[in-house]
Amino acid sequence: MSRTTDIKALAEGVQRGDRRALARAITLVESGRADHRADALALLETLGTGKQALRIGLSGTPGVGKSTFIESFGLMLTGLGKRVAVLAVDPSSARSGGSILGDKTRMDHLARDPNAFIRPSPSQTQLGGVARRSREAVALCEAAGFDVVLIETVGVGQSETVVAQMADLFVLLLAPAGGDELQGVKRGIMEMADLILVNKADGDLKPQAMRTCADYAGALRLLRKRMQDPDGFPKALTISALEVEGLEAAWKEMETLIQWRRDNSIWTATREAQAAYWFGEDVRNGLLDMLQNDPQTAACMKAAEADVKAGRTPPTAAAEQVLGPLRLRLGGDAGKTGSET
Amino acid sequence: MSRTTDIKALAEGVQRGDRRALARAITLVESGRADHRADALALLETLGTGKQALRIGLSGTPGVGKSTFIESFGLMLTGLGKRVAVLAVDPSSARSGGSILGDKTRMDHLARDPNAFIRPSPSQTQLGGVARRSREAVALCEAAGFDVVLIETVGVGQSETVVAQMADLFVLLLAPAGGDELQGVKRGIMEMADLILVNKADGDLKPQAMRTCADYAGALRLLRKRMQDPDGFPKALTISALEVEGLEAAWKEMETLIQWRRDNSIWTATREAQAAYWFGEDVRNGLLDMLQNDPQTAACMKAAEADVKAGRTPPTAAAEQVLGPLRLRLGGDAGKTGSET
Repeated sequence: MSRTTDIKALAEGVQRGDRRALARAITLVESGRADHRADALALLETLGTGKQALRIGLSGTPGVGKSTFIESFGLMLTGLGKRVAVLAVDPSSARSGGSILGDKTRMDHLARDPNAFIRPSPSQTQLGGVARRSREAVALCEAAGFDVVLIETVGVGQSETVVAQMADLFVLLLAPAGGDELQGVKRGIMEMADLILVNKADGDLKPQAMRTCADYAGALRLLRKRMQDPDGFPKALTISALEVEGLEAAWKEMETLIQWRRDNSIWTATREAQAAYWFGEDVRNGLLDMLQNDPQTAACMKAAEADVKAGRTPPTAAAEQVLGPLRLRLGGDAGKTGSET
Repeated sequence: MSRTTDIKALAEGVQRGDRRALARAITLVESGRADHRADALALLETLGTGKQALRIGLSGTPGVGKSTFIESFGLMLTGLGKRVAVLAVDPSSARSGGSILGDKTRMDHLARDPNAFIRPSPSQTQLGGVARRSREAVALCEAAGFDVVLIETVGVGQSETVVAQMADLFVLLLAPAGGDELQGVKRGIMEMADLILVNKADGDLKPQAMRTCADYAGALRLLRKRMQDPDGFPKALTISALEVEGLEAAWKEMETLIQWRRDNSIWTATREAQAAYWFGEDVRNGLLDMLQNDPQTAACMKAAEADVKAGRTPPTAAAEQVLGPLRLRLGGDAGKTGSET
């Protein structure tokens, strides 16, 4: 396939930390066009994986003050001399037509900071595509020499799993809630959190924020300590993004946790496991794409799934109806019926 | 492939509710031999999916009194005229050499009850196989006309996900814990629970059990209500399996929840989604098996994964090294390069 992009020049731009080149590179990996895809792969291979940023996953439902947090936290980090990139993973943007981080004016100062880079979420049609593009965008930010990559998501559950698989640590942002009031934390998100930050611990809301923080600290204690956690983690802290309070303390906790993981070889092991995970996902998704691009197999799968849902065929037997013909077509050793499926 | 089993006779035996025929049928689906597998598929297709039991997933770490609970709860159900089957999903049994439910003497009375059927876990080598065999065993119990199928597992995390995908409701059994003491609830299990039962609410432990129950009720309130839950669920209750207290109340809650799900079409939708899930899993696993049985592809995948882990190749590019040659071999429309992988 002929190149439509000057890969070498683009790679050099990214490696220089040129924000325009980075933006163009991200647009390239976000493209669904086959020729762009080939260019994107060539670009990623050229850049390699030599540089590593600290990747922080950030989740929180609307209203918890995520934009204010990113603005304050990002500026604090650039104030410490760090270069900060902010990306968004938002599988819902295609549905809603909107996009998170779309309104850069909510992060006015950070957006104009020369040591920061903010990229709104692309509109996508499916989470698989979002996941691949997001981690490729993260890889580009790392190649561009950023120290911290903040990966924001929206708290809908599935996207958190995706973000957790590309992050070194995961932060859950919450708002103060009164008494028994439900916080709307999606099941499964709390368990991923390394750090729960209860925002808006300022003014009248401060006592409520502290109670909410204590509630979550209590809930976290009821869960089993993970292998990759030092004593005391996961933690719950109060912060005020508005009054820029508690952010340095939160950053200190993140540094402590990450240093511990580095010292205990967990950093490297996690990165390796994540890379292997995404490789496996890419192979599986690629195989399924291959089948869906094949009208014969696609029709067979559709019919088999309908039979399964209606209870007419057991899942295993239906799967065999799809797999049998493929085995014959692949031929050779792949054609052998495995006794273990 | 020639039949080594009289499928028709075996199917009739299972449908009559003959416990020996059921045991033989389960042994058949548990077998890894290719000819047995063909027989097992034929048997499952013959039996169909006409009868449905209430499938209850049950998890709890060792020491919480799971066997005593199954004995007491099972006998209560048979006392109500229900026929009860008990199965175990235990991915660890291959490693440990042991098996949960292996010691039927711990469920002495239930094991001798003509309306009960207890099947210890088979020793298996991998969770994928365990999952498929377990849900096939559940389907056999349903075909045999059992009203309730209890699917026990061990609280190690991954196996709970598997059990939740084959259960209509999920029960987490806990023991009383003092104050801040960690209960060792694996992250992600609490979120699956429809009902948390704090066992050993008897004698000196009763006040502690009530406190533990209140702690978990509090933690559950911090999680978002699921679509498939009526008001008040998930719930935490205290029980005493030893003194047979609270079991009828627990059963009443289960019935309420299930009736609500039936009334709101959630029962059927969940079963359909589960069947589609397992079909997808079977296709995906079958494809991966096909590739692993193909020495050329297996070698290519191994090399690609090593490159990915070492950071030498980005995951997408490595996946393409595996998928490219397969596309060529499959040929036709499947050979087209998808722009979306």
